Amino acid sequence: MTWPRFSRRMSSLPPSFLEELFRVSQLEGIISFAGGLPDATLIDCEGIARASGQVLSEEPMVALQYSTTDGYLPLREYIAERYKSRFNIPPEPDNIQIVNGSQQCLDLVAKIFLDTGDTVAIEAPGYLGAIEAFSLYEPLFCPIKVTNEGPSIAELEKCVCEVKPKFFYGIPNSQNPSGITWSNEKRLAVAQIMEGTETVFFEDDAFGELFFDQVPRVPVKKYLPSQTVLSGSFSKIIAPGLRIGWIYAPHEIIKQFNIVKQSADLHSNFLAQKILHRYLVDNSLDEHLKKISEIYGKRCSYMCDLIDDMLPQCIHTKPEGGMFLIVNLPDSISAMDLFKKGINEGVAVLPGSPFFVNGGGDDFIRLNFSNTSFESIYEGMERLKKAFDR
Amino acid sequence: MTWPRFSRRMSSLPPSFLEELFRVSQLEGIISFAGGLPDATLIDCEGIARASGQVLSEEPMVALQYSTTDGYLPLREYIAERYKSRFNIPPEPDNIQIVNGSQQCLDLVAKIFLDTGDTVAIEAPGYLGAIEAFSLYEPLFCPIKVTNEGPSIAELEKCVCEVKPKFFYGIPNSQNPSGITWSNEKRLAVAQIMEGTETVFFEDDAFGELFFDQVPRVPVKKYLPSQTVLSGSFSKIIAPGLRIGWIYAPHEIIKQFNIVKQSADLHSNFLAQKILHRYLVDNSLDEHLKKISEIYGKRCSYMCDLIDDMLPQCIHTKPEGGMFLIVNLPDSISAMDLFKKGINEGVAVLPGSPFFVNGGGDDFIRLNFSNTSFESIYEGMERLKKAFDR
Repeated sequence: MTWPRFSRRMSSLPPSFLEELFRVSQLEGIISFAGGLPDATLIDCEGIARASGQVLSEEPMVALQYSTTDGYLPLREYIAERYKSRFNIPPEPDNIQIVNGSQQCLDLVAKIFLDTGDTVAIEAPGYLGAIEAFSLYEPLFCPIKVTNEGPSIAELEKCVCEVKPKFFYGIPNSQNPSGITWSNEKRLAVAQIMEGTETVFFEDDAFGELFFDQVPRVPVKKYLPSQTVLSGSFSKIIAPGLRIGWIYAPHEIIKQFNIVKQSADLHSNFLAQKILHRYLVDNSLDEHLKKISEIYGKRCSYMCDLIDDMLPQCIHTKPEGGMFLIVNLPDSISAMDLFKKGINEGVAVLPGSPFFVNGGGDDFIRLNFSNTSFESIYEGMERLKKAFDR
Repeated sequence: MTWPRFSRRMSSLPPSFLEELFRVSQLEGIISFAGGLPDATLIDCEGIARASGQVLSEEPMVALQYSTTDGYLPLREYIAERYKSRFNIPPEPDNIQIVNGSQQCLDLVAKIFLDTGDTVAIEAPGYLGAIEAFSLYEPLFCPIKVTNEGPSIAELEKCVCEVKPKFFYGIPNSQNPSGITWSNEKRLAVAQIMEGTETVFFEDDAFGELFFDQVPRVPVKKYLPSQTVLSGSFSKIIAPGLRIGWIYAPHEIIKQFNIVKQSADLHSNFLAQKILHRYLVDNSLDEHLKKISEIYGKRCSYMCDLIDDMLPQCIHTKPEGGMFLIVNLPDSISAMDLFKKGINEGVAVLPGSPFFVNGGGDDFIRLNFSNTSFESIYEGMERLKKAFDR
C-alpha cells in the first residue's frame, strides 16, 4: 500500500526553486542577486501605517468582516481608472477581480482553462513561478523562444496554428527572467497572430509600472482586448506582504475567475484591500513610482557596467525596467556550477534551468538588482567574478 | 467555435449559493439568518488596531515584504502550543501550514489528493463551500448520512471498504449546516473504521473553539493522528477579514501543502499574520472566546425557543456551539419555497438543497444565529412564521 495516495499532479511537478531561493538569500553574509524581492527600504511604511490607522479607526468592523469575492469596489475602480488614464483602455470595475498577488492569477488562469494534456504556450526562458503553477494542471508546454525584441513570431504562429494552445503566457514588460521588454512591433504582431484564434493571451504585467524612463508601454490587451487576460500586482510597486494583485479580463472570463476565486479562498484579505485603497487615495502613486523606478534604474545601470567591466566574456540583457537581467555565460561555464561556486564565495545567483520547461538554460544566470545597495552590488559582483574565474 | 475554451471542471460545478447568499443578506431591510458571518460588533477592533499599530511601527519592512510559504513561525508556534495545552496533542510548528482561512484548506486538500473520478466521502448534509471547492477537481461523492450523534458508521464503513475514498471530509464540532456535534463514541468509531485504510480523514474544525459551555471536544485527529488532516481558522473567532486559517497535518502531507500553497499564492498575507500574532500575544484568546461563545449560546437558545413556540410543527437541532442550526420542515413545505416567501417577508433563510451532492435537502432550512441581535432574531422569526403560514 502506497500511502498517502496523492493526486497524480503532485508527482508531475518540476523541483521547486522559489522556496530554495528564498532560503539561500536569507543565509548569513550572502549577497543575494537570486531573489525577486523589491527593496523593503523603499516601501512607504509610514504611508501604509497611516492608512492602516485610518481604516482601523474609521471602519474596523467592515474591514475585519467577510466581504465579496470580486474585491473591494473602490479599489477595483481605482485600478480601472488607471488603465483609462494611462492607456485609454476601458475596463469597468466588473472586469477586475482582486487576487492575492500575481501568483494567484497564475493558479486561477490555469484552473479555469486547463484540462490534463492541454497545451500552454510559454516564453522560453519563462517565469518559473508560472511553470510551477501551470504544471499542477498537467499541461503540455509549447516553448516560444524570447529574443531581444520579444517572443519569436514564427514559433508562436506555428504553435498557435498547429497545437491550438489554451493560452499563451507572456510578460511583455521587463520579462522574468530576461528583463527584456517586447517592442511595440512584437506586441502588434502577437495580437495579429492570435486574433480570431481559440487561444487566449495571458499577459502578466507585474512590472509595467517600473520602467526606468517612466514611459508606459502599451499592453497587448489594447490590441487584443477580447482575447487577453491581463494580470497586475501591487507587490512590486507598493508592498508584497499585502498580497494584492488583480486580473483584468472580459466579462465572460471574469465570471469564471469569480467562481474559482470563491472556491480558492472566498476573497482576498479585506483589511489589506482597504488599507491599500486608502493609501492610494491619500498618496501619489506616480511620485512613489518615479522614486523607486529611478533607484532601480540606477542599480541596473551600475550592475550592467560592472558586468561589462568584470565579466567581459559575458553578454547580458539591458533592461528598461523591472528587477532582473540575465547574463549569458561562455560555453565553458555551467550556470549550475557557477551558482554553487557563487554560494561558496558569498553571492547567490539564479541559474537558468528552472526557466525552461523542456531542458536547457544552463548557459545563463538571472541577476536581481532591485534589492541590493550600490555597495553590495559591487561587492557581490566581485564575489561573482571570483566564482567565475574558478 | 466555442470560445473561450474553459476547462471541463468549470462546467461540472453545482450552481453557487455562497455569493448569492451574501448578496441577499445585504439587501435593505432583510433580516438574514442565511449567512455564516460572525457578529462584527464582537470583533475586538481596538485590540486589532493596537496590534496593527505596533507591527507597523516596530517592524513594518518585515511585515510588508515577501515571506516564507509555510507562514509566520511564531504564529505557527502559537497554534501548535494551543493544541498541546488543550488536547495534549503534539504538533511541531512544521506540522502547521498557514492558509487564507478554512476555505483555502478545502481547495488545497482537494488539489493534493484528487484526480478526476476519485471518490470523496462527505457528510450529508455537508458544507456547501466544501462541495463547491471539491467539485472543481471532478470527484465522485459518497454521501454519509449525519444523524444527531454524527455520521452513520455503517454508511462510512461501507464507503471506506468498498470505494476507498481518497478522504472523508467531516466537521465533528458544530457541523455546518446541521449544528450537530459528534459524540465522543462517534469520533472513536470513525477513527477505528478508518485506521489502517487508505483513506485520509479531513477534519474541518472551524467551530471547535466556539462551544457554548467552553468545554473542548477531543478532535478525531487525537484518535487517528497519522491519517488526519485537521484545519482551523481564526475567521469565526477573531476576524474573517484577516483571512487566516491553518492546516495541521503529518510531515509527509504538510510538505505537499507547502508546494501547492506556494503555487497558489506564495504565502498568506504577512501583515495580517503579524498583526494576528501580536494580537494573540497581547490579549487573552480564552477570555475573548468566553465572551463571544456565551453570546452566541444565548442567541442560539433564544432562537430554539422561538422555533418551538412559533413553528411547533418543525423539529430543529439543538447546537452545543457554532453558528447554525437546521429546522426540519413538515412534508407539505418546500424549503426553496419557504426561502422565496421569506425574502418577500423580509427574512433570509438558507434552503437545504445546496448541502447535498446528489439531490435532496428541500425538507430543511439552515438558520444562522451568530450575526443577529435578540430583537432581530425575534422579528426575523415572526417574519419566518408569516412566510411559513402562507
